[in-house]
Amino acid sequence: MSAAGDLAPAALRAAIRRGDWTGPTAGAVRGYLQCNLAILPEGFARGFESWCQANPGVCPLVAVGKPGDPRLPSLGGDIDLRTDLPGYSVFRGGRPGGHVLAIGDLWRDDFVAFAFGCSFSFEGVLLGEGVDLRYLARGEREAIYRSSLETTPVDGFSGPLIVSMRPLRPVDAIRAIEVTARYPLVHGAPVHIGKPEAIRVDPDRPMETLGGISVADDELPLFWACGVTPQLAIRRAAPDICITHRSAHMLVTDIPVDTLRDRTPEDGLTPGSGGS
Amino acid sequence: MSAAGDLAPAALRAAIRRGDWTGPTAGAVRGYLQCNLAILPEGFARGFESWCQANPGVCPLVAVGKPGDPRLPSLGGDIDLRTDLPGYSVFRGGRPGGHVLAIGDLWRDDFVAFAFGCSFSFEGVLLGEGVDLRYLARGEREAIYRSSLETTPVDGFSGPLIVSMRPLRPVDAIRAIEVTARYPLVHGAPVHIGKPEAIRVDPDRPMETLGGISVADDELPLFWACGVTPQLAIRRAAPDICITHRSAHMLVTDIPVDTLRDRTPEDGLTPGSGGS
Repeated sequence: MSAAGDLAPAALRAAIRRGDWTGPTAGAVRGYLQCNLAILPEGFARGFESWCQANPGVCPLVAVGKPGDPRLPSLGGDIDLRTDLPGYSVFRGGRPGGHVLAIGDLWRDDFVAFAFGCSFSFEGVLLGEGVDLRYLARGEREAIYRSSLETTPVDGFSGPLIVSMRPLRPVDAIRAIEVTARYPLVHGAPVHIGKPEAIRVDPDRPMETLGGISVADDELPLFWACGVTPQLAIRRAAPDICITHRSAHMLVTDIPVDTLRDRTPEDGLTPGSGGS
Repeated sequence: MSAAGDLAPAALRAAIRRGDWTGPTAGAVRGYLQCNLAILPEGFARGFESWCQANPGVCPLVAVGKPGDPRLPSLGGDIDLRTDLPGYSVFRGGRPGGHVLAIGDLWRDDFVAFAFGCSFSFEGVLLGEGVDLRYLARGEREAIYRSSLETTPVDGFSGPLIVSMRPLRPVDAIRAIEVTARYPLVHGAPVHIGKPEAIRVDPDRPMETLGGISVADDELPLFWACGVTPQLAIRRAAPDICITHRSAHMLVTDIPVDTLRDRTPEDGLTPGSGGS
């Protein structure tokens, strides 16, 4: 799967664990599933899992850890969630509590970890299918926006849908919809195309971008559900503590993205994987 | 497959054969494949078949008749192409030669019939998948346009791509792309979305429409390859005679559309079907 020069996922995780890699993971490893992470006390875990299941396009669960267990063996035999992400965001009582590089000192016996697919995973698939991601050639990266769309609320978890935007020419937009629709575990098809004003988004004013973004006259903006969404939903539920991946600093797994084709959150990842 | 009140395909063909039904077939039979038809002298058949194969999204072949044989048994046991369409267009030397209701008196021993999927077939599939076709509620029908896109020329067959347009809201547009992409035998995914000026189409000025068409402010125009395209390609090749279905007056088959999911022109329709 890996192109010349790319790190293997386990090698990247080892570099992160040693503290040698602290940057974003987008593009660092091609062809492997990258995951959003959310770690919650057990008292909030069931509600959060129900909210994920009610919003499968937003939070396509690929693995759920056992209470107190920092491993997710179905995603990589050596994964230790306390050290293997290059950045974590900590929330206390629903408020941002800063970023950290490891969470060994924060780990608790009642923590439950949730991993769900990230759209970073599918850029490689799109390129492999011949979709022209011109924004990459322009030195730009997808940007994220707060939309006027709302997630389905469950047990105190609720909030707006955060979307990532990629500008594409019409023929590439159609192909990108076709391709991503077949990968529901990494958000699936876009939630919106064109007409950004219909979801109250101004493409020129992202919440966050990794490298600037623009929509050319011959391009349409495409919007996918973004894994930042659950961070806002968790903040509303306001557990005493919650830890997530830091934006763009993902859990890199051993799962080749192409094995996810046509698999849904209901299918799960592998027989017996995850499961709280 | 058939909803209450719908005719079965064989019953509709019988009514057409008797002369009781001379109108368009769109909507007359739901859930069954409707086909574009082209009948050519054998000397032009190989070139036309090659052109279809070079343009599979434009002319997805589902059956090819034997020379001189007016039957296409893989599409319906009783089909007689001389009588079973409610309207035919005749072209002589590449020029329009009028419309007729039957072609028994024109039939020749060297005629080869080609049937390919028509996008009329997929409106039922879209409705079944929950896509809101608001233009139908407005009393409108898809319209067709001459685009600036060109088909791949083969053996004298060439010409512009004719497209059919359906206006949809963004969320329905995405779903329509997902759904139609899985039906390559009825044109598959759209060829264009939004930005009609990029393919030099003015949505307000169709070549042809069955009931007027409009694009609302919150809708995007989606353009699919249209089965009228080969009529123009055949006119350029200018055989002494060619007979096609009359626009919107299709060959109605016994093939349930849902059995075509994920089948490509290369797969063919059934083992041993068609084949010249």
